[in-house]
Amino acid sequence: MSQKIVIIGGVAAGPKAAARARRVAPDAEITIIEKGGLISYAGCGMPFYLSGEVQNFNLLFETTYGVIRNEEYFWREKGCRVITRTEAKSIDRAKKEVHVENLETGEKYNVPYDKLVLATGASPFVPPIEGLDLKGVFKFNHPDDAQQIKQYLGDMEGGEAVIVGAGLIGLEIADALMKLHMFCTVVELQNQILPGMLDDDMAGVLAKKLTDQGVEFLLNTKVLKLEGDEDGNVTSVVTDNGNIDAELVLVSVGVRPNVELARQADITIGATGAIAVNEYLQTNDPDIYALGDCVETTHLISEKKMFIPMATYANRQGRVVGDNLVGGKTVFRGVLGTAVMHTMGYNIGRTGLSEKQALELGYKIVSAVNHGFDRTHYHPDNGMVLIKLITEEGSGRILGAQALGPGDAVKRIDVVATAISMGANVEQLAEVDLGYAPPFSTPIDLTTHTANIVRNKVAGLAKTMTLAELKEKMDRGDDMVLLDVRTEIQFQMRRLKDDRVKLVVLGDLREKLNEVPRDKEVIVFCALGGRSYEAQRILIGAGFTDVKFLEGGLLAYNYTL
Amino acid sequence: MSQKIVIIGGVAAGPKAAARARRVAPDAEITIIEKGGLISYAGCGMPFYLSGEVQNFNLLFETTYGVIRNEEYFWREKGCRVITRTEAKSIDRAKKEVHVENLETGEKYNVPYDKLVLATGASPFVPPIEGLDLKGVFKFNHPDDAQQIKQYLGDMEGGEAVIVGAGLIGLEIADALMKLHMFCTVVELQNQILPGMLDDDMAGVLAKKLTDQGVEFLLNTKVLKLEGDEDGNVTSVVTDNGNIDAELVLVSVGVRPNVELARQADITIGATGAIAVNEYLQTNDPDIYALGDCVETTHLISEKKMFIPMATYANRQGRVVGDNLVGGKTVFRGVLGTAVMHTMGYNIGRTGLSEKQALELGYKIVSAVNHGFDRTHYHPDNGMVLIKLITEEGSGRILGAQALGPGDAVKRIDVVATAISMGANVEQLAEVDLGYAPPFSTPIDLTTHTANIVRNKVAGLAKTMTLAELKEKMDRGDDMVLLDVRTEIQFQMRRLKDDRVKLVVLGDLREKLNEVPRDKEVIVFCALGGRSYEAQRILIGAGFTDVKFLEGGLLAYNYTL
Repeated sequence: MSQKIVIIGGVAAGPKAAARARRVAPDAEITIIEKGGLISYAGCGMPFYLSGEVQNFNLLFETTYGVIRNEEYFWREKGCRVITRTEAKSIDRAKKEVHVENLETGEKYNVPYDKLVLATGASPFVPPIEGLDLKGVFKFNHPDDAQQIKQYLGDMEGGEAVIVGAGLIGLEIADALMKLHMFCTVVELQNQILPGMLDDDMAGVLAKKLTDQGVEFLLNTKVLKLEGDEDGNVTSVVTDNGNIDAELVLVSVGVRPNVELARQADITIGATGAIAVNEYLQTNDPDIYALGDCVETTHLISEKKMFIPMATYANRQGRVVGDNLVGGKTVFRGVLGTAVMHTMGYNIGRTGLSEKQALELGYKIVSAVNHGFDRTHYHPDNGMVLIKLITEEGSGRILGAQALGPGDAVKRIDVVATAISMGANVEQLAEVDLGYAPPFSTPIDLTTHTANIVRNKVAGLAKTMTLAELKEKMDRGDDMVLLDVRTEIQFQMRRLKDDRVKLVVLGDLREKLNEVPRDKEVIVFCALGGRSYEAQRILIGAGFTDVKFLEGGLLAYNYTL
Repeated sequence: MSQKIVIIGGVAAGPKAAARARRVAPDAEITIIEKGGLISYAGCGMPFYLSGEVQNFNLLFETTYGVIRNEEYFWREKGCRVITRTEAKSIDRAKKEVHVENLETGEKYNVPYDKLVLATGASPFVPPIEGLDLKGVFKFNHPDDAQQIKQYLGDMEGGEAVIVGAGLIGLEIADALMKLHMFCTVVELQNQILPGMLDDDMAGVLAKKLTDQGVEFLLNTKVLKLEGDEDGNVTSVVTDNGNIDAELVLVSVGVRPNVELARQADITIGATGAIAVNEYLQTNDPDIYALGDCVETTHLISEKKMFIPMATYANRQGRVVGDNLVGGKTVFRGVLGTAVMHTMGYNIGRTGLSEKQALELGYKIVSAVNHGFDRTHYHPDNGMVLIKLITEEGSGRILGAQALGPGDAVKRIDVVATAISMGANVEQLAEVDLGYAPPFSTPIDLTTHTANIVRNKVAGLAKTMTLAELKEKMDRGDDMVLLDVRTEIQFQMRRLKDDRVKLVVLGDLREKLNEVPRDKEVIVFCALGGRSYEAQRILIGAGFTDVKFLEGGLLAYNYTL
């Protein structure tokens, strides 16, 4: 008799597990139960539909060959039965039955299973504030949300939008709304944008660059309530940092795993609040698997359990569960928390541990921040990338990386993710034979170059200072020389406004050594970091003892110290 | 007394070694001797200058901050003395002197060294054919060449150009000339384009795609001579495959390492014809280093010595030699032969061993060819990529990859290069946590997906056929069913013209099993490969025993079987 597989959840993880199980076991009887009306949709595509970059809503539900992924598709192409608008109300593990309810007819019935899969996903966290039910207030979790926002906006241009939450989704929404010519303010409770993704130094640079694109950020700001007019339309966001006019409010403050069904069935919930699974993605009930946005996973560096809901994990886990449902022993080792995104002309990514996470976990680290071109500077398509590499002191093991810029930051993140995944140290990363041609990279790729900076720091050749350290020293009024070694033209156009700044063009430095005081701390800087490193080596070679250079250069920081 | 370092060659490897040595050892006395008039130029940028994408010739000689990298720059910023238009004629290893000649004045003198570096580069191979001295015949190795071609072309548009050699440089030149609205024919002695870079299956696909862009390829064709008019202008290329009119001929049939100077000084030349060096890039004389386009290097997979001249190796080796000149013990492990390029809208790359190389080395392999989108199919920026992954049977070790397409093929090559560099097997590659967001990739990235196809083949789930195998069977007249499982619309628009073709849309297959003969071999195909794999699983599930699907799908092959 064929095995009965029942999958609860039809968005990404569930269908993927179903399709894989079907390919491996042609005679399994596979049923997907989905509460909503839509299945197997590209949720990550919603911001691009909202912005108009994706014009046809159906594209989010179609295969590459134009067939809508609906119940019929799953039955005819995948041989899986899909039951939509039907909610799994409870699980009877002893009888191996799911009690379901048809949400349209109210009919209740039992679905028997041999193997059960929980792919129940996650739901947007709803902060406890007043006014969320006003017209013009939206969440952004389901294709219906995107359509409702589009409908609400109509032909509105130049309206004021407030986005609550400066996370990845919040900034994707801001990008979409700015493409629709809305004025966007993003309110964030924490002291930085993308708090779950970037260290505060990188986030600070990004926030300045994005502000230049026209978005406003209100950090360290708590939304107290939303106010509306007499017709129930939202008009204003009241924060502990002032009121903001708003015709549209989007609340995007993270998601919570949907675990109630599992909890009621005594499926173990982990300390993260998500369903606990082993490396086979099995719950404490060996006949019940769980995957996707409702489970926790192992971080491959810290080896700690984390809740990191990501579409790519849902899909990759689907393959694992699909195998294991039908007798396989495929393992899902865990994740690096790689995340990439695009907003307002900037490509942004991270992988592995952030510096903050690494320090919290007790690692001693050597990191480097580097700023450069993603391809040769003479190639017309080039763009800048700011990249940060975090390594373990001593072993040199790569712990993480972050990158952002108009250039191809994401390729570098993928390369570092691959290296971390294999346990690479900084020497090994620096030695990777990456592809070079002018339209794609520089002869020494940014990744290699950044690894070399870490090596130079470890070897004692490069002594650096971060922007935060420099800013602290400047604010404290430290007596020091701020040695700008850029060209005369660059200096005239834009420079740090500070009495301690002194210009000595790099090419003149060897013959103007006497102009640099030997009894003071010298902080060298240039546009990107390369010349200031060169200058540091010249000064140290000439007997100067207290010389550091600014990592990432002035261009990384918009000169706003 | 400070150490005297003399470097022969001032293009890429030499200056890089000089700059690194300078930073590590501030008091070394560093001299670069260059035969030509230009130093430290971006030779790889020449095709982009020729095409007009790079408009300012000086950009190829400038730093990112607009300073020309000339003798003064090297002296003032890098503290290195550069002597141009001066040729190293011989080396007296006993006296540790280089005999040089000023090519302008004829003055001859000796330059003493403690450590010597050979960065003598490579020169274009000149095939033994008549007519190379005609006007309109060029090589493409030096910035002067690019300028002379531009000058020669003037305002010419629509002229006929013949490029001899379908290697990487030849195809970059073709791209540039087509941007200048020239008609291009590329003549290649071997039976495929990019013979040093791609396997013939990948090269065959690419050649078809590029032919669609308007270039003509003459393969298996030998140039016999060039003919000119009475004014000495080239008019025609005579081949063993007919004559081609030509107003411009570019000869680009590879380079040979410049080793005469080394050979005369009894420096060991390797079997490849390039200078032999150890892992410290030292020659048989421990005081003489060599690097860049004049040395051979170790292939990290085959562990064999190879001659692979690449700008990125020259630069990375420069750092190693720079360290070792001044007491370091830095190692250059070797290379993977990664190469990437862009031509006529196509991004192309390879890393590691090709299938052909792997088989020649005696590896048993499992490879997979996959065709898919570089980012989500609904994202407006997406492009297709055809990717081939070569793994070792049994161990699953990744041996190499090749990729090409309008989409981002190069990112995938960099990821695979990183994985190979760390000794990854196919499971490990499939498990890398690559970044996903709709503008950058698909939820399961192409690389992961291709690794999964290899896993499916190894597990016996996927049984495939390559185009070459299929073509052979078709030509032989084998009795078989060519089962097209695409949609009706796709089939109507474009399909294989063969009596053995039968359409059963994937969604109908389960109910039309009776229409597929059970006593014949069945070859399933679709556009990209996904549906045909699905169909294969359905047929095998239904008891069919002899079913294979076409790897990479029909779209990979332009339907031209």
